[in-house]
Amino acid sequence: MGRTAQEVNAALDAAVPSAYPESLTEAMRYSLLAGGKRVRPALCLAACALVGGDARAALPSACAVEIVHTMSLIHDDLPSMDNDDFRRGRPTNHKVYGEDVAILAGDALLTHAFELIARDTPRDLVPADRALRIVVELARASGAAGLVGGQVVDIQSEGKEVGLDVLRYIHEHKTAALLEAAVVCGALAGGADDATVERLRRYALNIGLAFQIVDDILDVTQSTEVLGKTAAKDLASNKTTYPKLLGLDESRAEAERLIDEAVAQLSGFDAQRAAPLVALAKYIGYRQN
Amino acid sequence: MGRTAQEVNAALDAAVPSAYPESLTEAMRYSLLAGGKRVRPALCLAACALVGGDARAALPSACAVEIVHTMSLIHDDLPSMDNDDFRRGRPTNHKVYGEDVAILAGDALLTHAFELIARDTPRDLVPADRALRIVVELARASGAAGLVGGQVVDIQSEGKEVGLDVLRYIHEHKTAALLEAAVVCGALAGGADDATVERLRRYALNIGLAFQIVDDILDVTQSTEVLGKTAAKDLASNKTTYPKLLGLDESRAEAERLIDEAVAQLSGFDAQRAAPLVALAKYIGYRQN
Repeated sequence: MGRTAQEVNAALDAAVPSAYPESLTEAMRYSLLAGGKRVRPALCLAACALVGGDARAALPSACAVEIVHTMSLIHDDLPSMDNDDFRRGRPTNHKVYGEDVAILAGDALLTHAFELIARDTPRDLVPADRALRIVVELARASGAAGLVGGQVVDIQSEGKEVGLDVLRYIHEHKTAALLEAAVVCGALAGGADDATVERLRRYALNIGLAFQIVDDILDVTQSTEVLGKTAAKDLASNKTTYPKLLGLDESRAEAERLIDEAVAQLSGFDAQRAAPLVALAKYIGYRQN
Repeated sequence: MGRTAQEVNAALDAAVPSAYPESLTEAMRYSLLAGGKRVRPALCLAACALVGGDARAALPSACAVEIVHTMSLIHDDLPSMDNDDFRRGRPTNHKVYGEDVAILAGDALLTHAFELIARDTPRDLVPADRALRIVVELARASGAAGLVGGQVVDIQSEGKEVGLDVLRYIHEHKTAALLEAAVVCGALAGGADDATVERLRRYALNIGLAFQIVDDILDVTQSTEVLGKTAAKDLASNKTTYPKLLGLDESRAEAERLIDEAVAQLSGFDAQRAAPLVALAKYIGYRQN
Protein backbone atom coordinates (compact mmCIF):
# COMPACT_ATOMS: atom_id res chain seq x y z
CA MET A 1 0.00 0.00 0.00
CA GLY A 2 3.01 2.32 0.35
CA ARG A 3 3.07 3.85 -3.11
CA THR A 4 -0.72 4.14 -3.37
CA ALA A 5 -0.96 5.88 0.01
CA GLN A 6 1.74 8.33 -1.07
CA GLU A 7 -0.07 9.12 -4.31
CA VAL A 8 -3.35 9.54 -2.43
CA ASN A 9 -1.71 11.82 0.14
CA ALA A 10 -0.28 13.98 -2.64
CA ALA A 11 -3.69 14.14 -4.35
CA LEU A 12 -5.44 15.03 -1.08
CA ASP A 13 -2.86 17.73 -0.40
CA ALA A 14 -3.55 19.24 -3.82
CA ALA A 15 -7.34 18.78 -3.50
CA VAL A 16 -7.63 21.07 -0.46
CA PRO A 17 -5.09 23.88 -0.88
CA SER A 18 -4.49 26.60 1.71
CA ALA A 19 -6.62 29.64 0.92
CA TYR A 20 -8.43 32.52 2.60
CA PRO A 21 -9.85 32.12 5.22
CA GLU A 22 -6.72 30.22 6.29
CA SER A 23 -8.11 29.16 9.68
CA LEU A 24 -10.73 27.15 7.79
CA THR A 25 -8.50 25.50 5.19
CA GLU A 26 -5.91 24.85 7.89
CA ALA A 27 -8.53 23.01 9.97
CA MET A 28 -9.63 21.03 6.91
CA ARG A 29 -6.04 20.08 6.08
CA TYR A 30 -5.15 19.30 9.70
CA SER A 31 -7.52 16.33 9.82
CA LEU A 32 -7.32 15.37 6.16
CA LEU A 33 -3.52 15.15 6.07
CA ALA A 34 -3.14 13.58 9.53
CA GLY A 35 -1.87 10.34 8.03
CA GLY A 36 -4.78 7.94 8.15
CA LYS A 37 -4.37 4.46 6.74
CA ARG A 38 -6.06 5.49 3.46
CA VAL A 39 -7.94 2.17 3.34
CA ARG A 40 -10.88 3.68 1.44
CA PRO A 41 -8.83 5.27 -1.35
CA ALA A 42 -6.84 2.05 -1.66
CA LEU A 43 -10.09 0.08 -2.06
CA CYS A 44 -11.38 2.58 -4.62
CA LEU A 45 -8.22 2.45 -6.74
CA ALA A 46 -7.94 -1.34 -6.44
CA ALA A 47 -11.55 -1.81 -7.61
CA CYS A 48 -10.88 0.47 -10.59
CA ALA A 49 -7.73 -1.49 -11.49
CA LEU A 50 -9.54 -4.83 -11.08
CA VAL A 51 -12.05 -3.94 -13.79
CA GLY A 52 -9.29 -2.69 -16.09
CA GLY A 53 -9.66 1.05 -15.44
CA ASP A 54 -6.96 3.71 -15.47
CA ALA A 55 -6.01 4.92 -11.96
CA ARG A 56 -6.56 8.53 -13.08
CA ALA A 57 -10.26 7.72 -13.61
CA ALA A 58 -10.78 6.82 -9.94
CA LEU A 59 -8.39 9.22 -8.18
CA PRO A 60 -10.95 12.03 -7.60
CA SER A 61 -13.42 9.46 -6.22
CA ALA A 62 -10.72 7.92 -4.03
CA CYS A 63 -9.96 11.35 -2.57
CA ALA A 64 -13.65 12.20 -2.21
CA VAL A 65 -14.37 9.07 -0.16
CA GLU A 66 -11.44 9.81 2.15
CA ILE A 67 -12.62 13.41 2.49
CA VAL A 68 -16.11 12.25 3.55
CA HIS A 69 -14.51 9.79 5.98
CA THR A 70 -12.38 12.59 7.47
CA MET A 71 -15.34 14.93 7.90
CA SER A 72 -17.31 12.18 9.64
CA LEU A 73 -14.44 11.73 12.11
CA ILE A 74 -14.30 15.48 12.82
CA HIS A 75 -18.03 15.63 13.54
CA ASP A 76 -18.08 12.31 15.46
CA ASP A 77 -15.38 13.62 17.79
CA LEU A 78 -17.33 16.78 18.74
CA PRO A 79 -18.28 17.37 22.39
CA SER A 80 -21.98 16.89 21.62
CA MET A 81 -21.23 13.52 19.98
CA ASP A 82 -18.43 11.16 21.09
CA ASN A 83 -16.51 13.97 22.82
CA ASP A 84 -13.11 12.59 21.90
CA ASP A 85 -9.85 14.44 22.58
CA PHE A 86 -7.52 12.34 20.45
CA ARG A 87 -7.64 10.97 16.94
CA ARG A 88 -4.83 9.43 14.91
CA GLY A 89 -2.53 10.20 17.84
CA ARG A 90 -3.19 13.97 17.78
CA PRO A 91 -5.67 16.33 19.44
CA THR A 92 -9.04 16.25 17.67
CA ASN A 93 -10.01 19.04 15.30
CA HIS A 94 -12.25 20.95 17.72
CA LYS A 95 -9.54 20.78 20.41
CA VAL A 96 -7.22 22.71 18.09
CA TYR A 97 -9.57 24.96 16.11
CA GLY A 98 -12.64 25.27 18.34
CA GLU A 99 -16.02 23.64 17.98
CA ASP A 100 -17.40 26.20 15.53
CA VAL A 101 -14.56 25.94 13.04
CA ALA A 102 -14.48 22.13 13.40
CA ILE A 103 -18.16 21.89 12.45
CA LEU A 104 -17.63 24.23 9.49
CA ALA A 105 -14.45 22.45 8.37
CA GLY A 106 -16.50 19.25 8.26
CA ASP A 107 -19.20 20.97 6.22
CA ALA A 108 -16.66 22.37 3.78
CA LEU A 109 -14.98 18.98 3.39
CA LEU A 110 -18.31 17.25 2.72
CA THR A 111 -19.16 19.80 0.06
CA HIS A 112 -15.71 19.52 -1.46
CA ALA A 113 -16.00 15.76 -1.92
CA PHE A 114 -18.82 16.21 -4.43
CA GLU A 115 -17.14 19.14 -6.13
CA LEU A 116 -14.03 17.01 -6.63
CA ILE A 117 -15.87 14.14 -8.30
CA ALA A 118 -17.96 16.40 -10.52
CA ARG A 119 -15.09 18.71 -11.46
CA ASP A 120 -11.99 16.51 -11.60
CA THR A 121 -13.12 13.09 -12.84
CA PRO A 122 -11.38 13.03 -16.24
CA ARG A 123 -14.04 13.27 -18.94
CA ASP A 124 -11.87 11.41 -21.46
CA LEU A 125 -11.93 8.33 -19.23
CA VAL A 126 -15.31 8.54 -17.47
CA PRO A 127 -18.51 9.57 -19.30
CA ALA A 128 -20.50 12.34 -17.56
CA ASP A 129 -23.47 10.06 -16.75
CA ARG A 130 -21.10 7.70 -14.96
CA ALA A 131 -19.62 10.58 -12.95
CA LEU A 132 -23.18 11.45 -11.92
CA ARG A 133 -23.73 7.85 -10.78
CA ILE A 134 -20.57 8.16 -8.67
CA VAL A 135 -21.94 11.34 -7.05
CA VAL A 136 -25.22 9.56 -6.25
CA GLU A 137 -23.41 6.52 -4.86
CA LEU A 138 -21.18 8.55 -2.54
CA ALA A 139 -24.04 10.82 -1.46
CA ARG A 140 -26.31 7.91 -0.56
CA ALA A 141 -23.51 6.23 1.41
CA SER A 142 -22.76 9.47 3.30
CA GLY A 143 -26.23 10.72 4.21
CA ALA A 144 -29.34 9.71 6.11
CA ALA A 145 -29.48 6.29 4.41
CA GLY A 146 -25.79 5.66 5.15
CA LEU A 147 -23.09 7.07 7.40
CA VAL A 148 -25.18 9.76 9.11
CA GLY A 149 -28.09 7.35 9.69
CA GLY A 150 -25.69 4.89 11.31
CA GLN A 151 -24.24 7.59 13.53
CA VAL A 152 -27.71 8.68 14.71
CA VAL A 153 -28.72 5.13 15.64
CA ASP A 154 -25.34 4.67 17.33
CA ILE A 155 -25.84 7.79 19.46
CA GLN A 156 -29.39 6.81 20.35
CA SER A 157 -28.31 3.32 21.37
CA GLU A 158 -25.83 4.64 23.92
CA GLY A 159 -26.34 3.22 27.38
CA LYS A 160 -29.10 0.94 26.08
CA GLU A 161 -29.11 -2.81 25.59
CA VAL A 162 -29.39 -3.32 21.84
CA GLY A 163 -29.61 -6.57 19.91
CA LEU A 164 -27.53 -7.88 17.04
CA ASP A 165 -29.95 -6.43 14.44
CA VAL A 166 -29.46 -2.85 15.65
CA LEU A 167 -25.72 -3.35 16.10
CA ARG A 168 -25.53 -4.69 12.56
CA TYR A 169 -27.51 -1.70 11.26
CA ILE A 170 -25.05 0.66 12.96
CA HIS A 171 -22.02 -1.14 11.56
CA GLU A 172 -23.45 -1.51 8.08
CA HIS A 173 -24.31 2.18 7.91
CA LYS A 174 -21.64 3.86 10.01
CA THR A 175 -18.76 1.90 8.52
CA ALA A 176 -19.65 -0.48 5.70
CA ALA A 177 -21.59 2.07 3.62
CA LEU A 178 -18.52 4.20 2.94
CA LEU A 179 -16.27 1.21 2.23
CA GLU A 180 -18.99 0.06 -0.18
CA ALA A 181 -19.03 3.48 -1.84
CA ALA A 182 -15.23 3.39 -2.15
CA VAL A 183 -15.31 0.07 -4.00
CA VAL A 184 -18.41 0.80 -6.10
CA CYS A 185 -17.22 4.28 -7.13
CA GLY A 186 -13.86 2.80 -8.13
CA ALA A 187 -15.57 0.12 -10.18
CA LEU A 188 -17.89 2.66 -11.82
CA ALA A 189 -14.97 4.95 -12.67
CA GLY A 190 -13.12 1.97 -14.11
CA GLY A 191 -16.03 1.19 -16.43
CA ALA A 192 -17.41 -1.97 -14.78
CA ASP A 193 -20.74 -3.40 -15.98
CA ASP A 194 -23.66 -3.54 -13.53
CA ALA A 195 -23.24 -7.22 -12.59
CA THR A 196 -19.59 -6.62 -11.70
CA VAL A 197 -20.49 -3.54 -9.69
CA GLU A 198 -23.01 -5.54 -7.64
CA ARG A 199 -20.51 -8.34 -7.05
CA LEU A 200 -17.93 -5.87 -5.77
CA ARG A 201 -20.62 -4.25 -3.65
CA ARG A 202 -21.09 -7.56 -1.83
CA TYR A 203 -17.32 -7.84 -1.37
CA ALA A 204 -17.31 -4.37 0.16
CA LEU A 205 -20.28 -4.93 2.47
CA ASN A 206 -18.62 -8.00 3.92
CA ILE A 207 -15.28 -6.32 4.57
CA GLY A 208 -17.13 -3.28 5.90
CA LEU A 209 -18.90 -5.30 8.54
CA ALA A 210 -15.68 -7.16 9.34
CA PHE A 211 -13.85 -3.82 9.64
CA GLN A 212 -16.17 -2.66 12.39
CA ILE A 213 -16.18 -5.98 14.25
CA VAL A 214 -12.37 -5.83 14.28
CA ASP A 215 -12.63 -2.23 15.51
CA ASP A 216 -14.81 -3.42 18.39
CA ILE A 217 -12.29 -6.18 19.16
CA LEU A 218 -9.30 -3.80 19.07
CA ASP A 219 -11.07 -1.41 21.43
CA VAL A 220 -10.96 -4.05 24.18
CA THR A 221 -7.64 -5.69 23.32
CA GLN A 222 -5.31 -2.80 22.41
CA SER A 223 -3.84 0.24 24.16
CA THR A 224 -4.55 3.89 23.36
CA GLU A 225 -0.94 4.14 22.19
CA VAL A 226 -1.28 1.40 19.58
CA LEU A 227 -4.70 2.62 18.40
CA GLY A 228 -3.84 6.33 18.18
CA LYS A 229 -7.25 6.98 19.72
CA THR A 230 -8.74 6.41 23.17
CA ALA A 231 -8.91 2.67 23.92
CA ALA A 232 -11.51 0.80 25.99
CA LYS A 233 -13.91 3.61 25.19
CA ASP A 234 -16.72 1.21 24.34
CA LEU A 235 -16.37 -0.53 27.71
CA ALA A 236 -16.19 2.79 29.56
CA SER A 237 -19.38 4.01 27.88
CA ASN A 238 -21.06 0.61 28.30
CA LYS A 239 -21.57 0.44 24.55
CA THR A 240 -23.00 -2.62 22.87
CA THR A 241 -20.31 -4.23 20.71
CA TYR A 242 -19.76 -7.56 18.97
CA PRO A 243 -17.40 -8.82 21.70
CA LYS A 244 -20.01 -7.91 24.30
CA LEU A 245 -22.84 -9.69 22.47
CA LEU A 246 -20.93 -12.68 21.08
CA GLY A 247 -17.70 -12.85 23.11
CA LEU A 248 -14.20 -12.28 21.72
CA ASP A 249 -13.68 -15.69 20.10
CA GLU A 250 -17.04 -15.74 18.37
CA SER A 251 -16.49 -12.15 17.17
CA ARG A 252 -13.11 -13.10 15.70
CA ALA A 253 -14.74 -16.10 13.96
CA GLU A 254 -17.50 -13.87 12.53
CA ALA A 255 -14.93 -11.39 11.19
CA GLU A 256 -13.04 -14.26 9.55
CA ARG A 257 -16.22 -15.65 8.01
CA LEU A 258 -17.05 -12.23 6.52
CA ILE A 259 -13.54 -11.84 5.10
CA ASP A 260 -13.81 -15.30 3.49
CA GLU A 261 -17.16 -14.39 1.99
CA ALA A 262 -15.70 -11.13 0.66
CA VAL A 263 -12.75 -12.91 -0.93
CA ALA A 264 -15.14 -15.46 -2.49
CA GLN A 265 -16.74 -12.61 -4.49
CA LEU A 266 -13.41 -12.12 -6.24
CA SER A 267 -13.15 -15.71 -7.51
CA GLY A 268 -14.34 -14.92 -11.05
CA PHE A 269 -11.60 -12.32 -11.65
CA ASP A 270 -8.03 -12.64 -12.83
CA ALA A 271 -6.11 -13.69 -9.70
CA GLN A 272 -3.25 -11.26 -10.17
CA ARG A 273 -5.56 -8.29 -10.67
CA ALA A 274 -7.67 -9.35 -7.69
CA ALA A 275 -4.64 -9.73 -5.41
CA PRO A 276 -4.73 -6.15 -3.99
CA LEU A 277 -8.42 -6.49 -3.00
CA VAL A 278 -7.70 -9.88 -1.41
CA ALA A 279 -4.80 -8.32 0.48
CA LEU A 280 -6.96 -5.38 1.62
CA ALA A 281 -9.66 -7.75 2.86
CA LYS A 282 -7.10 -9.71 4.88
CA TYR A 283 -5.50 -6.53 6.17
CA ILE A 284 -8.90 -5.35 7.40
CA GLY A 285 -9.67 -8.70 9.01
CA TYR A 286 -6.35 -9.15 10.77
CA ARG A 287 -5.06 -5.62 11.44
CA GLN A 288 -3.75 -4.70 14.90
CA ASN A 289 -4.73 -1.00 14.93
CA MET B 1 -44.70 33.63 -5.74
CA GLY B 2 -47.64 31.73 -4.25
CA ARG B 3 -47.91 28.89 -6.74
CA THR B 4 -44.14 28.46 -7.10
CA ALA B 5 -43.64 28.29 -3.33
CA GLN B 6 -46.36 25.64 -3.09
CA GLU B 7 -44.76 23.55 -5.82
CA VAL B 8 -41.37 23.90 -4.18
CA ASN B 9 -42.78 22.94 -0.79
CA ALA B 10 -44.37 19.83 -2.29
CA ALA B 11 -41.10 18.91 -4.01
CA LEU B 12 -39.10 19.44 -0.81
CA ASP B 13 -41.59 17.32 1.12
CA ALA B 14 -41.11 14.50 -1.40
CA ALA B 15 -37.32 14.99 -1.57
CA VAL B 16 -36.78 14.18 2.12
CA PRO B 17 -39.31 11.50 3.09
CA SER B 18 -39.68 10.13 6.60
CA ALA B 19 -37.57 7.00 7.01
CA TYR B 20 -35.60 5.06 9.60
CA PRO B 21 -34.02 6.49 11.71
CA GLU B 22 -37.10 8.71 12.12
CA SER B 23 -35.49 11.06 14.65
CA LEU B 24 -33.03 12.06 11.92
CA THR B 25 -35.46 12.51 9.03
CA GLU B 26 -37.87 14.28 11.39
CA ALA B 27 -35.13 16.75 12.32
CA MET B 28 -34.28 17.28 8.64
CA ARG B 29 -37.93 17.83 7.74
CA TYR B 30 -38.57 20.07 10.76
CA SER B 31 -36.25 22.77 9.45
CA LEU B 32 -36.72 22.13 5.75
CA LEU B 33 -40.52 22.35 5.85
CA ALA B 34 -40.67 25.22 8.34
CA GLY B 35 -42.09 27.54 5.72
CA GLY B 36 -39.22 29.73 4.63
CA LYS B 37 -39.80 32.32 1.94
CA ARG B 38 -38.31 30.00 -0.72
CA VAL B 39 -36.52 32.93 -2.36
CA ARG B 40 -33.68 30.72 -3.64
CA PRO B 41 -35.90 28.14 -5.37
CA ALA B 42 -37.96 30.98 -6.86
CA LEU B 43 -34.77 32.54 -8.26
CA CYS B 44 -33.63 29.19 -9.64
CA LEU B 45 -36.93 28.47 -11.38
CA ALA B 46 -37.25 32.03 -12.68
CA ALA B 47 -33.73 31.93 -14.19
CA CYS B 48 -34.57 28.63 -15.89
CA ALA B 49 -37.80 30.07 -17.31
CA LEU B 50 -36.02 33.24 -18.44
CA VAL B 51 -33.69 31.28 -20.71
CA GLY B 52 -36.59 29.22 -22.07
CA GLY B 53 -36.11 26.09 -19.96
CA ASP B 54 -38.78 23.69 -18.68
CA ALA B 55 -39.44 24.08 -14.93
CA ARG B 56 -38.91 20.33 -14.47
CA ALA B 57 -35.29 20.79 -15.54
CA ALA B 58 -34.52 23.11 -12.63
CA LEU B 59 -36.74 21.72 -9.86
CA PRO B 60 -34.11 19.36 -8.36
CA SER B 61 -31.58 22.24 -8.36
CA ALA B 62 -34.16 24.59 -6.82
CA CYS B 63 -34.76 22.09 -4.01
CA ALA B 64 -31.03 21.42 -3.59
CA VAL B 65 -30.22 25.10 -3.10
CA GLU B 66 -32.98 25.44 -0.49
CA ILE B 67 -31.71 22.30 1.25
CA VAL B 68 -28.18 23.74 1.48
CA HIS B 69 -29.65 27.02 2.76
CA THR B 70 -31.62 25.12 5.44
CA MET B 71 -28.59 23.14 6.59
CA SER B 72 -26.57 26.33 6.88
CA LEU B 73 -29.25 27.81 9.14
CA ILE B 74 -29.28 24.70 11.35
CA HIS B 75 -25.50 24.81 11.80
CA ASP B 76 -25.38 28.63 12.16
CA ASP B 77 -27.89 28.45 15.01
CA LEU B 78 -25.83 25.94 17.04
CA PRO B 79 -24.62 26.91 20.53
CA SER B 80 -20.99 26.97 19.37
CA MET B 81 -21.91 29.37 16.54
CA ASP B 82 -24.65 32.02 16.75
CA ASN B 83 -26.40 30.22 19.63
CA ASP B 84 -29.89 31.14 18.48
CA ASP B 85 -33.06 29.78 20.07
CA PHE B 86 -35.58 30.86 17.43
CA ARG B 87 -35.72 30.64 13.66
CA ARG B 88 -38.68 31.24 11.40
CA GLY B 89 -40.77 31.78 14.55
CA ARG B 90 -40.06 28.32 15.98
CA PRO B 91 -37.43 26.83 18.31
CA THR B 92 -34.19 26.12 16.44
CA ASN B 93 -33.35 22.57 15.39
CA HIS B 94 -30.92 21.81 18.23
CA LYS B 95 -33.43 23.13 20.78
CA VAL B 96 -35.86 20.45 19.64
CA TYR B 97 -33.64 17.53 18.63
CA GLY B 98 -30.41 18.14 20.55
CA GLU B 99 -27.11 19.40 19.31
CA ASP B 100 -25.83 16.05 18.06
CA VAL B 101 -28.85 15.29 15.90
CA ALA B 102 -28.97 18.89 14.64
CA ILE B 103 -25.36 18.67 13.43
CA LEU B 104 -26.06 15.32 11.76
CA ALA B 105 -29.34 16.51 10.22
CA GLY B 106 -27.35 19.34 8.64
CA ASP B 107 -24.77 16.89 7.31
CA ALA B 108 -27.47 14.64 5.87
CA LEU B 109 -29.22 17.58 4.21
CA LEU B 110 -25.97 18.82 2.66
CA THR B 111 -25.29 15.38 1.24
CA HIS B 112 -28.82 15.05 -0.02
CA ALA B 113 -28.63 18.27 -2.02
CA PHE B 114 -25.97 16.77 -4.28
CA GLU B 115 -27.74 13.42 -4.50
CA LEU B 116 -30.89 15.18 -5.62
CA ILE B 117 -29.22 17.08 -8.47
CA ALA B 118 -27.26 14.06 -9.68
CA ARG B 119 -30.16 11.62 -9.37
CA ASP B 120 -33.30 13.62 -10.20
CA THR B 121 -32.30 16.17 -12.82
CA PRO B 122 -34.27 14.85 -15.80
CA ARG B 123 -31.82 13.47 -18.35
CA ASP B 124 -34.18 14.14 -21.24
CA LEU B 125 -34.00 17.88 -20.50
CA VAL B 126 -30.51 18.36 -19.07
CA PRO B 127 -27.42 16.61 -20.50
CA ALA B 128 -25.26 14.79 -17.92
CA ASP B 129 -22.30 17.14 -18.35
CA ARG B 130 -24.57 20.09 -17.55
CA ALA B 131 -25.86 18.34 -14.42
CA LEU B 132 -22.22 17.91 -13.36
CA ARG B 133 -21.64 21.65 -13.87
CA ILE B 134 -24.64 22.28 -11.61
CA VAL B 135 -23.12 20.06 -8.92
CA VAL B 136 -19.82 21.96 -9.16
CA GLU B 137 -21.57 25.33 -9.04
CA LEU B 138 -23.60 24.50 -5.93
CA ALA B 139 -20.64 22.83 -4.21
CA ARG B 140 -18.37 25.82 -4.75
CA ALA B 141 -21.05 28.20 -3.47
CA SER B 142 -21.61 26.06 -0.37
CA GLY B 143 -18.07 25.23 0.73
CA ALA B 144 -14.84 26.91 1.82
CA ALA B 145 -14.89 29.31 -1.16
CA GLY B 146 -18.53 30.24 -0.49
CA LEU B 147 -21.04 29.94 2.33
CA VAL B 148 -18.78 28.18 4.85
CA GLY B 149 -15.89 30.56 4.16
CA GLY B 150 -18.21 33.50 4.77
CA GLN B 151 -19.44 32.01 8.01
CA VAL B 152 -15.89 31.47 9.29
CA VAL B 153 -14.88 35.08 8.58
CA ASP B 154 -18.14 36.23 10.16
CA ILE B 155 -17.42 34.30 13.36
CA GLN B 156 -13.84 35.50 13.51
CA SER B 157 -14.92 39.11 13.04
CA GLU B 158 -17.19 39.02 16.08
CA GLY B 159 -16.46 41.74 18.58
CA LYS B 160 -13.84 43.23 16.27
CA GLU B 161 -13.92 46.43 14.26
CA VAL B 162 -13.90 45.34 10.64
CA GLY B 163 -13.90 47.48 7.52
CA LEU B 164 -16.19 47.53 4.52
CA ASP B 165 -13.94 45.09 2.60
CA VAL B 166 -14.27 42.33 5.23
CA LEU B 167 -17.98 43.03 5.67
CA ARG B 168 -18.42 42.76 1.92
CA TYR B 169 -16.49 39.46 1.85
CA ILE B 170 -18.79 38.07 4.55
CA HIS B 171 -21.96 39.17 2.75
CA GLU B 172 -20.78 38.01 -0.66
CA HIS B 173 -19.87 34.58 0.66
CA LYS B 174 -22.34 33.96 3.44
CA THR B 175 -25.36 35.18 1.48
CA ALA B 176 -24.71 36.15 -2.13
CA ALA B 177 -22.88 32.93 -3.09
CA LEU B 178 -25.95 30.75 -2.60
CA LEU B 179 -28.28 33.22 -4.34
CA GLU B 180 -25.77 33.22 -7.17
CA ALA B 181 -25.79 29.41 -7.26
CA ALA B 182 -29.60 29.43 -7.33
CA VAL B 183 -29.70 31.67 -10.39
CA VAL B 184 -26.75 30.09 -12.19
CA CYS B 185 -27.95 26.51 -11.58
CA GLY B 186 -31.39 27.47 -12.89
CA ALA B 187 -29.86 29.04 -15.99
CA LEU B 188 -27.62 26.01 -16.56
CA ALA B 189 -30.56 23.62 -16.18
CA GLY B 190 -32.56 25.75 -18.62
CA GLY B 191 -29.84 25.45 -21.24
CA ALA B 192 -28.38 29.00 -21.15
CA ASP B 193 -25.16 29.73 -23.06
CA ASP B 194 -22.09 30.84 -21.10
CA ALA B 195 -22.50 34.58 -21.76
CA THR B 196 -26.07 34.48 -20.46
CA VAL B 197 -24.98 32.49 -17.41
CA GLU B 198 -22.37 35.14 -16.54
CA ARG B 199 -24.86 37.97 -17.02
CA LEU B 200 -27.31 36.29 -14.65
CA ARG B 201 -24.46 35.66 -12.24
CA ARG B 202 -23.91 39.44 -12.00
CA TYR B 203 -27.65 39.92 -11.46
CA ALA B 204 -27.49 37.41 -8.60
CA LEU B 205 -24.37 38.84 -6.95
CA ASN B 206 -25.99 42.26 -6.80
CA ILE B 207 -29.24 41.05 -5.30
CA GLY B 208 -27.25 38.80 -2.94
CA LEU B 209 -25.34 41.71 -1.51
CA ALA B 210 -28.53 43.79 -1.34
CA PHE B 211 -30.28 40.91 0.45
CA GLN B 212 -27.75 40.96 3.27
CA ILE B 213 -27.67 44.76 3.56
CA VAL B 214 -31.46 44.70 3.92
CA ASP B 215 -31.07 41.93 6.52
CA ASP B 216 -28.72 44.19 8.48
CA ILE B 217 -31.21 47.06 8.19
CA LEU B 218 -34.16 44.91 9.31
CA ASP B 219 -32.20 43.69 12.33
CA VAL B 220 -32.15 47.25 13.72
CA THR B 221 -35.55 48.44 12.48
CA GLN B 222 -37.90 45.47 13.03
CA SER B 223 -39.18 43.47 16.00
CA THR B 224 -38.49 39.80 16.76
CA GLU B 225 -42.17 39.15 16.05
CA VAL B 226 -42.04 40.53 12.52
CA LEU B 227 -38.69 38.87 11.71
CA GLY B 228 -39.50 35.43 13.14
CA LYS B 229 -35.98 35.45 14.57
CA THR B 230 -34.26 37.38 17.35
CA ALA B 231 -34.11 41.09 16.44
CA ALA B 232 -31.41 43.62 17.36
CA LYS B 233 -29.02 40.70 17.64
CA ASP B 234 -26.32 42.49 15.67
CA LEU B 235 -26.46 45.48 18.02
CA ALA B 236 -26.46 43.25 21.10
CA SER B 237 -23.38 41.38 19.87
CA ASN B 238 -21.74 44.61 18.72
CA LYS B 239 -21.48 43.19 15.20
CA THR B 240 -20.23 45.25 12.29
CA THR B 241 -23.07 45.83 9.84
CA TYR B 242 -23.79 48.12 6.93
CA PRO B 243 -25.98 50.46 9.04
CA LYS B 244 -23.19 50.68 11.60
CA LEU B 245 -20.52 51.49 8.99
CA LEU B 246 -22.58 53.64 6.63
CA GLY B 247 -25.66 54.68 8.61
CA LEU B 248 -29.23 53.66 7.83
CA ASP B 249 -29.91 56.08 4.97
CA GLU B 250 -26.68 55.34 3.16
CA SER B 251 -27.26 51.58 3.61
CA ARG B 252 -30.74 51.89 2.11
CA ALA B 253 -29.29 53.84 -0.82
CA GLU B 254 -26.59 51.20 -1.38
CA ALA B 255 -29.21 48.41 -1.40
CA GLU B 256 -31.26 50.36 -3.94
CA ARG B 257 -28.21 50.95 -6.13
CA LEU B 258 -27.43 47.20 -6.11
CA ILE B 259 -31.02 46.30 -7.00
CA ASP B 260 -30.93 48.78 -9.91
CA GLU B 261 -27.67 47.27 -11.11
CA ALA B 262 -29.17 43.79 -10.87
CA VAL B 263 -32.24 44.77 -12.84
CA ALA B 264 -30.01 46.40 -15.49
CA GLN B 265 -28.50 42.95 -16.21
CA LEU B 266 -31.95 41.82 -17.38
CA SER B 267 -32.33 44.56 -19.99
CA GLY B 268 -31.39 42.37 -22.95
CA PHE B 269 -34.12 39.79 -22.22
CA ASP B 270 -37.78 39.65 -23.20
CA ALA B 271 -39.48 41.94 -20.66
CA GLN B 272 -42.33 39.57 -19.89
CA ARG B 273 -40.02 36.63 -19.26
CA ALA B 274 -37.72 38.80 -17.13
CA ALA B 275 -40.60 40.14 -15.01
CA PRO B 276 -40.35 37.48 -12.25
CA LEU B 277 -36.61 38.14 -11.75
CA VAL B 278 -37.27 41.89 -11.67
CA ALA B 279 -40.00 41.32 -9.10
CA LEU B 280 -37.73 39.08 -6.99
CA ALA B 281 -34.98 41.72 -7.05
CA LYS B 282 -37.43 44.38 -5.87
CA TYR B 283 -38.90 42.05 -3.26
CA ILE B 284 -35.39 41.44 -1.88
CA GLY B 285 -34.57 45.14 -1.89
CA TYR B 286 -37.77 46.35 -0.25
CA ARG B 287 -38.94 43.44 1.93
CA GLN B 288 -40.00 44.06 5.54
CA ASN B 289 -38.96 40.70 7.06
